[in-house]
Amino acid sequence: MAILAAYNEIALKSRYVRGSLERTLAAHIEAKLQKNGYTEARVERKFGRLIVRGAPEEAASLVSDVFGVVFVLPAEETDSGIDSVVDLATKVAEEAIHEEESFAVRSKVVGDLPYGSRDLAVKAGAAILEALKGKNVRVNLSKPDVTVGVEVRDDEAFVFTKTIQGVGGVPYGTQGHMVSLFSGGIDSPVATWLMMKRGVAVYTLFMDQTPYVGESYLRRAEEAYEALGRYASVGAFDLYVALMGDVMARILESREPRFTCILCKRAMYRIAQRFAAYKRAKGIITGESLGQVASQTTDNLFVLSNAVSIPLIRPLIGLDKVEIEVIARRIGTYGISAHSVEGCKAVPTTPATRSRISVIEGLEEELDLTALCVDAAKKIEKRRLIRA
Amino acid sequence: MAILAAYNEIALKSRYVRGSLERTLAAHIEAKLQKNGYTEARVERKFGRLIVRGAPEEAASLVSDVFGVVFVLPAEETDSGIDSVVDLATKVAEEAIHEEESFAVRSKVVGDLPYGSRDLAVKAGAAILEALKGKNVRVNLSKPDVTVGVEVRDDEAFVFTKTIQGVGGVPYGTQGHMVSLFSGGIDSPVATWLMMKRGVAVYTLFMDQTPYVGESYLRRAEEAYEALGRYASVGAFDLYVALMGDVMARILESREPRFTCILCKRAMYRIAQRFAAYKRAKGIITGESLGQVASQTTDNLFVLSNAVSIPLIRPLIGLDKVEIEVIARRIGTYGISAHSVEGCKAVPTTPATRSRISVIEGLEEELDLTALCVDAAKKIEKRRLIRA
Repeated sequence: MAILAAYNEIALKSRYVRGSLERTLAAHIEAKLQKNGYTEARVERKFGRLIVRGAPEEAASLVSDVFGVVFVLPAEETDSGIDSVVDLATKVAEEAIHEEESFAVRSKVVGDLPYGSRDLAVKAGAAILEALKGKNVRVNLSKPDVTVGVEVRDDEAFVFTKTIQGVGGVPYGTQGHMVSLFSGGIDSPVATWLMMKRGVAVYTLFMDQTPYVGESYLRRAEEAYEALGRYASVGAFDLYVALMGDVMARILESREPRFTCILCKRAMYRIAQRFAAYKRAKGIITGESLGQVASQTTDNLFVLSNAVSIPLIRPLIGLDKVEIEVIARRIGTYGISAHSVEGCKAVPTTPATRSRISVIEGLEEELDLTALCVDAAKKIEKRRLIRA
Repeated sequence: MAILAAYNEIALKSRYVRGSLERTLAAHIEAKLQKNGYTEARVERKFGRLIVRGAPEEAASLVSDVFGVVFVLPAEETDSGIDSVVDLATKVAEEAIHEEESFAVRSKVVGDLPYGSRDLAVKAGAAILEALKGKNVRVNLSKPDVTVGVEVRDDEAFVFTKTIQGVGGVPYGTQGHMVSLFSGGIDSPVATWLMMKRGVAVYTLFMDQTPYVGESYLRRAEEAYEALGRYASVGAFDLYVALMGDVMARILESREPRFTCILCKRAMYRIAQRFAAYKRAKGIITGESLGQVASQTTDNLFVLSNAVSIPLIRPLIGLDKVEIEVIARRIGTYGISAHSVEGCKAVPTTPATRSRISVIEGLEEELDLTALCVDAAKKIEKRRLIRA
């Protein structure tokens, strides 16, 4: 028994980078399996596949959830003598193909071997037909009910009938660090996950708006953070908390309550930027989607973005709410995020959908917000650390 | 015959905004149909649905492609007397339900009527069973082969059995303007389309790198632009061209060829920012996806973003190449973008994957690039204008 893992984008890179990314991916798969109790699991790199041994078939879904894995094949294995391969293919086919079903053999032969992939496919197909003649099965190359896959590499051969879709992306932590503004609502965990999938090691930063929100808010963020932790197979994935209470109290002294949310969000960006600089992180991930709520108009994003010079990374900017929810369900954060929490008490009755940078900057100066933001960034605390 | 169009996100907005967005969506559907030859088509707003009349069933797919439409129901219509409704449901069912199939009636009754939706479903279900008893059909409420939908609104009733998935999003042009850096490759049309779908009216801007690329480059961009034009049902969707030749010649004088692509991209951003300011556009859309190519590392995006203060809108930043290709196929740009064009001759053999802002700014000053960018922005020309 072995689990073959296929990867894709990595293969497009230069030979040097590819080697390094393959090693990283192998290490992530091994770490994930070992931390989930499969202490015997070992990963070997060979001819563009990763081969996992020492873990049972049930472990395949864990492998498929490692960023960088495109698909996973739980396989039986044998040596590369053609008779061994044909025998194994027949044995696997006997279990997988039912009465009246059609099948096809797809084969791939890599390395210096006395037979080619076509020879193998023909021979295995004939053997399977013969072995299953009592079941009335037939060959259908274009649309088979069951596909028997056979891969031979040098001295090893693998036979499989199941393909498990992988999560895709590139290995966690291979694209530097970013800070994620993490509320735990529907959007921010999805935005964070998408960038983790693209290889970014993330510092999740929760903005604690106490006393303007209840404690349930932080609980929800912690739970969503825990749910994402299982995707960070190797490397740090930390939860940090910034206290926003003082900043918000000051903002509420403003003579322009309709700009409260804009001032608050710009303050969050500023705090995150300071924190990112301290951590040498190169971007701030946000869950903003254009036009979803009043604060996310094109005009407001223009004014918000202007508050910082670090890149604002908004992976959800072009998605509909329903598309975001589909991803949230798939990654296991939807149930957590959909929990109702008390909304922020500081939100004005009619928040502005547009504003001018000069007006907002004037208010920020009046309220002396910069100093408070610097202070809040200094007091950021690490709450949790997952090494999944 | 009528075509019912359903929308979603719009319904979440305040009553005032909703009314305005509904009117806009109705106008977009009407304009699209009329420009496709259905000159009699008229759209009416009623109880959270848009009702299209004067267009045949084949026009439903055009309606489903208008941003803001979540799904489309081609329907037969009658008055709201219960006998008329049941008769029509029976007639529609006779055509839609085949031998041995199961069905369910789903009904919705809105307005002041002497019967409720349950009464209607029971009565219509019984009538259909009776009419189709020769076909041996049966009721299956949980997983029917055919669903007969019945919607009664005031004095009108609609019966339908088909649901066509709509493109989603919000009406084109309702979220302000942005400039899109548009090469016509796989990524930029997808990025542009996603933001059009979120309501942004786009100025597509092609950076003409002649003589470092061939003419096929511009042709490809023009074709991709034409393909996207059909989604801009109402409102301007223009193609502009900036001449980059002088800027690139200057960049190639640099003593650090490995930074060529970074200098070139920062110049593009700067030219686009000037153009956006002139057009009062509030963002620059790019097709960048993290880690896809050498220039799109976290480090490089940090250095690139620093060149401008306008928001850089990167809807593909969290997507894998295969996910981007799926969208490209769906929107009809893949075939165009996949056309091979001669690559840029100015790309160095080993482009840098990281750099320091101070170094890059130093080079830009030495080469006096800012003046050239200002000049290139001034000379931007409109090539085409689609009003689809």
